[in-house]
Amino acid sequence: MNASVAPGLAVIAGAGGLPREIAEAARASGRAVTIIALRGIADAAAYADFPHLVLGIGQLGSLLEALASRNLEEVLLVGSLTRPDISGLMPDAGLLRHLPELAKAMRGGDDQLLRGVITILEKRGLRVVGPGDVVPGLVAGVALMCGRKPETAIWDDARHGLAVLQAMSPFDVGQAAVVIGGRIVAIEAAEGTDAMLARVADLKARGKLRTGKAARNGVLVKVAKSGQDLRIDMPTIGPDTILNVAAAGLSGLALGIGEVLVVNKSETLARAQEHGLFVAGIANG
Amino acid sequence: MNASVAPGLAVIAGAGGLPREIAEAARASGRAVTIIALRGIADAAAYADFPHLVLGIGQLGSLLEALASRNLEEVLLVGSLTRPDISGLMPDAGLLRHLPELAKAMRGGDDQLLRGVITILEKRGLRVVGPGDVVPGLVAGVALMCGRKPETAIWDDARHGLAVLQAMSPFDVGQAAVVIGGRIVAIEAAEGTDAMLARVADLKARGKLRTGKAARNGVLVKVAKSGQDLRIDMPTIGPDTILNVAAAGLSGLALGIGEVLVVNKSETLARAQEHGLFVAGIANG
Repeated sequence: MNASVAPGLAVIAGAGGLPREIAEAARASGRAVTIIALRGIADAAAYADFPHLVLGIGQLGSLLEALASRNLEEVLLVGSLTRPDISGLMPDAGLLRHLPELAKAMRGGDDQLLRGVITILEKRGLRVVGPGDVVPGLVAGVALMCGRKPETAIWDDARHGLAVLQAMSPFDVGQAAVVIGGRIVAIEAAEGTDAMLARVADLKARGKLRTGKAARNGVLVKVAKSGQDLRIDMPTIGPDTILNVAAAGLSGLALGIGEVLVVNKSETLARAQEHGLFVAGIANG
Repeated sequence: MNASVAPGLAVIAGAGGLPREIAEAARASGRAVTIIALRGIADAAAYADFPHLVLGIGQLGSLLEALASRNLEEVLLVGSLTRPDISGLMPDAGLLRHLPELAKAMRGGDDQLLRGVITILEKRGLRVVGPGDVVPGLVAGVALMCGRKPETAIWDDARHGLAVLQAMSPFDVGQAAVVIGGRIVAIEAAEGTDAMLARVADLKARGKLRTGKAARNGVLVKVAKSGQDLRIDMPTIGPDTILNVAAAGLSGLALGIGEVLVVNKSETLARAQEHGLFVAGIANG
């Protein structure tokens, strides 16, 4: 194999539009991309313009064979997954062979299950990559991505939020925080970023937050936790995040540099511009 | 003055039933209690059986005079306060004299304002005390207060929650957390404990939390932040907290020893008993 040619990339696609977005960007960058659409989860028809095949989530044996026969050396797992119901898996022989490993992984929760699959792929000599490896342009960068440079007070809020998230990181919690005027007003745990932003909007509407006189004030800070595997669990924002940040009356978003995937990036940044929000990278180191 | 007699206690009462509960408990313990009901905030009629007077929140001068003339050496500030609208204060001469100090304190937020008032009182030789100083029986103690001793796994959850709250404490956030099966599922910031518990109940109802097979699982952890002034800002639970913990399907409550006021204690513990919840103290040190 010619060293200057990037290896074949298999995109194992779950639900949603993100797998297609990433596959398109990878193809545009010159990569040979094959889609493996998960049966009953991904919309296989959406990938008609890619080399693709459809596999059930239990067909681990067929997956390994397909990767080998098509010379796909890199694997990207992307899109939403609903937790598989083991009874409905219709496992193939390849899965059954790995069942003890996987059963052990299942008990540890979603992350552990995916880590178990990664381990099996890596043992076969495959390289599991993340969206940031394949399409770095979709990941939050150093520069101000959108809007005006935030004022010192707002950036102090961002750093304050970053500091508390870093302090919480060893406890595997704290995906994001909202800071307004030096005060941490919300911290995300199991509810998700959008629910947290809705809570801030609600607290504001009910006059429960003192937010100063500025029309917009405060910041959403979103970074990866230490040890978070960005290949399978990358923090993500998109156009809806922007609308929710705007509804919460914040000034903008500070996103961990290299750690946050900006889904539908052109639309996301266009909406931020439209609402007068900044989107900036923050170094989480 | 005879050293064996406790000094006269002034209870400066805001809104709600807590000032009366504490005043009654203090009186029952043999203290001479005078109520200073804040005009338009406290229900003065509820204190007819106590020596009492009514003062506006701007009448600092009258307050200092009343404390001196009645030999009230200890002051307890308790009950809800709405942030005063300065324009409606009708300040007396005593307030005006202290206005520069107070104006400075106002800009720092509620805590700073109350700290400013405390400083003024302490400069006059008065002692500002907290509910825990006056009625220690209403504060979470070492022992299991109610229910069966939590299983090891549940107590591990409590300790995990305590650890994350301690890590967040330097950032002046994290009044409480909910931990289920080793996972921190919610952290309280500006929304309050009840709203956080409602969020957990909602996530559970929508199947967004994996909570194991037990009918009840997980714990609410509530402790003071380091540096929190328990005289004016004591973490509090009450009967409604218990109902919300039950609705969230948790096993019980772990409360910082000496740090959490249990309002309406007999009813609170009775409700916990009724719902099969434990209420236990946890050492936050």
